[in-house]
Amino acid sequence: MRILLDVMGGDLPPYELVKGGVAAGRRLGIDIVFSGAEGVIRSALSRLHERENSKLSILPSTQAIAMTEPPVQAVRKKKDSSLVNGLVALKKRTVDAFVSPGNTGAVVAGAVFIVGRIAGIPRPGIAASIPTVSGREIVVIDVGANVDCTPEHLLYFALMGATYARDVLGIADPRIGLLNIGTERAKGNKVIHRVYDLLTDGPLPFAGNVEGHHLLTERPVDVVVCDGFIGNVFLKTLEGGISAMSSMIKKGANRNLQGKLGGLMLRPVFFSLRKKLAYNRLGGAPLLGVDGSVVIAHGRSDALAIESAVDVAYRAVESRLNETMARGVSGWDSNGS
Amino acid sequence: MRILLDVMGGDLPPYELVKGGVAAGRRLGIDIVFSGAEGVIRSALSRLHERENSKLSILPSTQAIAMTEPPVQAVRKKKDSSLVNGLVALKKRTVDAFVSPGNTGAVVAGAVFIVGRIAGIPRPGIAASIPTVSGREIVVIDVGANVDCTPEHLLYFALMGATYARDVLGIADPRIGLLNIGTERAKGNKVIHRVYDLLTDGPLPFAGNVEGHHLLTERPVDVVVCDGFIGNVFLKTLEGGISAMSSMIKKGANRNLQGKLGGLMLRPVFFSLRKKLAYNRLGGAPLLGVDGSVVIAHGRSDALAIESAVDVAYRAVESRLNETMARGVSGWDSNGS
Repeated sequence: MRILLDVMGGDLPPYELVKGGVAAGRRLGIDIVFSGAEGVIRSALSRLHERENSKLSILPSTQAIAMTEPPVQAVRKKKDSSLVNGLVALKKRTVDAFVSPGNTGAVVAGAVFIVGRIAGIPRPGIAASIPTVSGREIVVIDVGANVDCTPEHLLYFALMGATYARDVLGIADPRIGLLNIGTERAKGNKVIHRVYDLLTDGPLPFAGNVEGHHLLTERPVDVVVCDGFIGNVFLKTLEGGISAMSSMIKKGANRNLQGKLGGLMLRPVFFSLRKKLAYNRLGGAPLLGVDGSVVIAHGRSDALAIESAVDVAYRAVESRLNETMARGVSGWDSNGS
Repeated sequence: MRILLDVMGGDLPPYELVKGGVAAGRRLGIDIVFSGAEGVIRSALSRLHERENSKLSILPSTQAIAMTEPPVQAVRKKKDSSLVNGLVALKKRTVDAFVSPGNTGAVVAGAVFIVGRIAGIPRPGIAASIPTVSGREIVVIDVGANVDCTPEHLLYFALMGATYARDVLGIADPRIGLLNIGTERAKGNKVIHRVYDLLTDGPLPFAGNVEGHHLLTERPVDVVVCDGFIGNVFLKTLEGGISAMSSMIKKGANRNLQGKLGGLMLRPVFFSLRKKLAYNRLGGAPLLGVDGSVVIAHGRSDALAIESAVDVAYRAVESRLNETMARGVSGWDSNGS
């Protein structure tokens, strides 16, 4: 298996990303193709006491797309960027999957233009897996691919999310919830009301509306559906709430000796929590609905996060994500779910 | 000053709400009017060793609006509900403010129908104050009054939020942020782009886009503007993230003796945090833009939360909220802010 890693567009320097790619390649026993500036990648490899070979190769490019660039224009103009070259390689099937911590909008736009959508799916969606109190993750789709959604787009997010949960994550009969501002059917806005009706009449096991305050504690469903604007706000707010609480605990504990001692004793607990909840370390999120395995990593990904994103890509390839997706989405009517 | 408290529609029994009202009335030295079933309120008062008098009076009603009722129909049909009677009293100015932990949609619909909007303000908005790491609150508007918003509605939320922050909370030159999924101008959906332009061209000190993951830690602005659907998801997700983290810490700490000891030593820290972050205890949120002081308390409000919501109403009356709002919103152009 060959997984391509775009090492140019993240918040951290390419060295950090190359490091994660090297580690993932070794652990999984797969080939890694680094997409980006040749010299930079080569020097990163040499710092890691590695060299270019068939397992660790370079797809050279002279351009990089920055986080702040307008996605569509960037993809159209920067034909020799690490992101565009990487997606072209995926399209030509010279690599099996594409992983990037770069400009999410550019990855989405590039994937749609270059790799193309799976027939019948109107819009791709990013499926993030969020840790919950129970220890089992919950899938949220879409967390940022589409910010102007019609009810039909959301219906397809549900179909793709259910397929992903069932056929890639192995959750039998995944239950679907609609992210809303109350559990009653009448709650929400016009788009939400229409999606509610579509899901009620559709083939999926629809559990109704869910709300942000009980998702992580009760895990009422396996898959949460929302438009990409809401999903992105949801994800970042969760991250913000948790980091605010951590700061407040730290501040409070450092106020006196008892607090400091208590903090010391709880250090292993906080450490494991930080690992569990560090959103910049959560593996990548697959972009579902495009005709190839595309995984989006957090912009602030470090080596460990990249390693985990490559893991997600590995599982996507293993489970033949795009074929599974095409079959799954069209199959919900016939397979009796 | 006379503040009316609707004691029928909350999640907790009327006794709990009456208790909060009695405490607030005594502490603030104001009159409290309890709106609801006469017998129930009288027996609650007697359990509290109080009796009906000029400081603690009853506005009797035979109906109550439940949390799950469709707001507009409920307000239209239940003419003798505690909620409708309370808002009629506010309209007639027999009370100075109205506080309810009931069906938010019904309070908003009732306030618009019965009390009316302030001239020139297209839609009211709920302004919630959220605690941040710095200790200073941040105002978020709208957190649930309007779920289908036009750019103009959001512009008015900004004007009302800024007025509230400046003239009621005493924040000089409040800075405004637009809740978005990235800080760059190009981020977001069509409505957001239009609001961005309106705010850029408008009279307020607009600081650009803000994101959920840094709001509580960095407090980059004083007032955050968003549509009521997004704002409600934001608020509940924050609540959910914090409660999930608390559960995870508890679970982790209870795993061994060291953790249990550490938890014991940090108890004062957790206790004060819980008090600070308990969203069901946060004072009420004023409904800005209606021609009277209306304060919405959390549905799960207990006595302490009600006491704090009455506090918010008290400050609203003291600062002549609706006149301030009318003058403030129309005054941003002329007062040189």
